Amino acid sequence: MPTDTLTLALWQCPYAASTAEALARLDATAAQARAQGAALLVCPEMSLTGYQIGAAAVAALAEPADGPLAQAVATIAQRHRIAIVYGYPEHNTGGQPYNAVQFIGADGQRIANYRKTHLFGDIDRAQFSPGPQAPAVFDWNGWRLGLLVCYDIEFPEPARALALQGVDAVLVPTANMVDFDEVQRVLLPARALENRVFVAYANACGHEGGTTYGGLSTVCAPMGEVQVQAGRNEQRVLCTLTRSALHAARATSQLPNRRSDLT
Amino acid sequence: MPTDTLTLALWQCPYAASTAEALARLDATAAQARAQGAALLVCPEMSLTGYQIGAAAVAALAEPADGPLAQAVATIAQRHRIAIVYGYPEHNTGGQPYNAVQFIGADGQRIANYRKTHLFGDIDRAQFSPGPQAPAVFDWNGWRLGLLVCYDIEFPEPARALALQGVDAVLVPTANMVDFDEVQRVLLPARALENRVFVAYANACGHEGGTTYGGLSTVCAPMGEVQVQAGRNEQRVLCTLTRSALHAARATSQLPNRRSDLT
Repeated sequence: MPTDTLTLALWQCPYAASTAEALARLDATAAQARAQGAALLVCPEMSLTGYQIGAAAVAALAEPADGPLAQAVATIAQRHRIAIVYGYPEHNTGGQPYNAVQFIGADGQRIANYRKTHLFGDIDRAQFSPGPQAPAVFDWNGWRLGLLVCYDIEFPEPARALALQGVDAVLVPTANMVDFDEVQRVLLPARALENRVFVAYANACGHEGGTTYGGLSTVCAPMGEVQVQAGRNEQRVLCTLTRSALHAARATSQLPNRRSDLT
Repeated sequence: MPTDTLTLALWQCPYAASTAEALARLDATAAQARAQGAALLVCPEMSLTGYQIGAAAVAALAEPADGPLAQAVATIAQRHRIAIVYGYPEHNTGGQPYNAVQFIGADGQRIANYRKTHLFGDIDRAQFSPGPQAPAVFDWNGWRLGLLVCYDIEFPEPARALALQGVDAVLVPTANMVDFDEVQRVLLPARALENRVFVAYANACGHEGGTTYGGLSTVCAPMGEVQVQAGRNEQRVLCTLTRSALHAARATSQLPNRRSDLT
């Protein structure tokens, strides 16, 4: 697989009624995304279980990073030869589960796991423990990648922490409500531009209880351009990231001039 | 003067041929801005001397923060009863001058001085020393204000440092070239939104040597909206900042949820 490009698919989808249904739909979507040429499929936050399901359901569905959901996703990834980023509640011996995302390679190997560090309001705090560790990069197919979850990207610090570790693309499963479109409109382009990185934001759509998710899943290129953006409804969005765009953007990067002595 | 609003004017202007001409034009502009209702006039970076004038001219024109240029600006401020933010080369006993901005009150008092911390490429490095201190807020007429200069605002850290000190509005004298409009288009709205502050960016316009400045002086409101924006040519732009806009925006601010333990 060439490493000068990375073709990914964002899967903007409503939440399923069960994990079984979510896995069946992931299986079908992974097949379609692979057939379209994607090497990586990025799903929304808590994509396998639903997001606002309540603390009891979160606790009941929580599993370790190598649990049954992870094994089911690994089987799907191997079957269709596509890497997958998915969201799930991760078991936490010390308290409420984490709001976690995991990257599983096309060979079914677990490559990276991240626990959302910035909890969003009562929804998150009622269900989850905050991740205890700042995000870290990992290398995959010649690309340096990082994972964040939803609200994390609204703060400059987490994406900056990844940029200082040399990240090329920040992958962000999310469940952003329709009233907060300014995240896609204002903040994602800035995170990309200020760090000279790609930002790939895979949002939920449709309804969950009384909440409507806003879609508009987006990939921003490293000069802050919106490279692709979905509409409001269920959609797979394909996007090819190029190393040449990173190189060109980094010729004028601010990052080497950052005053690390003052922060 | 009511403190629930702050009416400021951004003076987008070309550089003058001499400090005498710059002061004469400042005097006329201050009178006009005050007549239009502005309580504060914000000028571009290095507004009294020109920006790309070379190290020898910068050194020759450099003065302490209470030097002759400061006294001339104080006289203008008092004459027209308007506060003024202007840019000048500040004397530095330890090396090349600082690229500084100063806030002088309508009573002629010097209220705050700031030295650009992030130097922009060879232009700045050939002429200036980097400011040694992170930016600090100051209080004026019931508003908590902060100063940055040009390239500083392209980094998330300096505006964030001011936000953590409770700033209401970040005032940014600048000399941004026409090829870098993404600062106004992408980064200023994000700085405002991610910190829930006003950002007032007063750019140069016209030509200086081979450089063309891009104008588009901008005030962003604290939800990231572009509240006013100038065109490409010389222009005074008035804008009224309201405390109610700050209050409304801060109801959904991310700042209280920042993970200071992870940065």
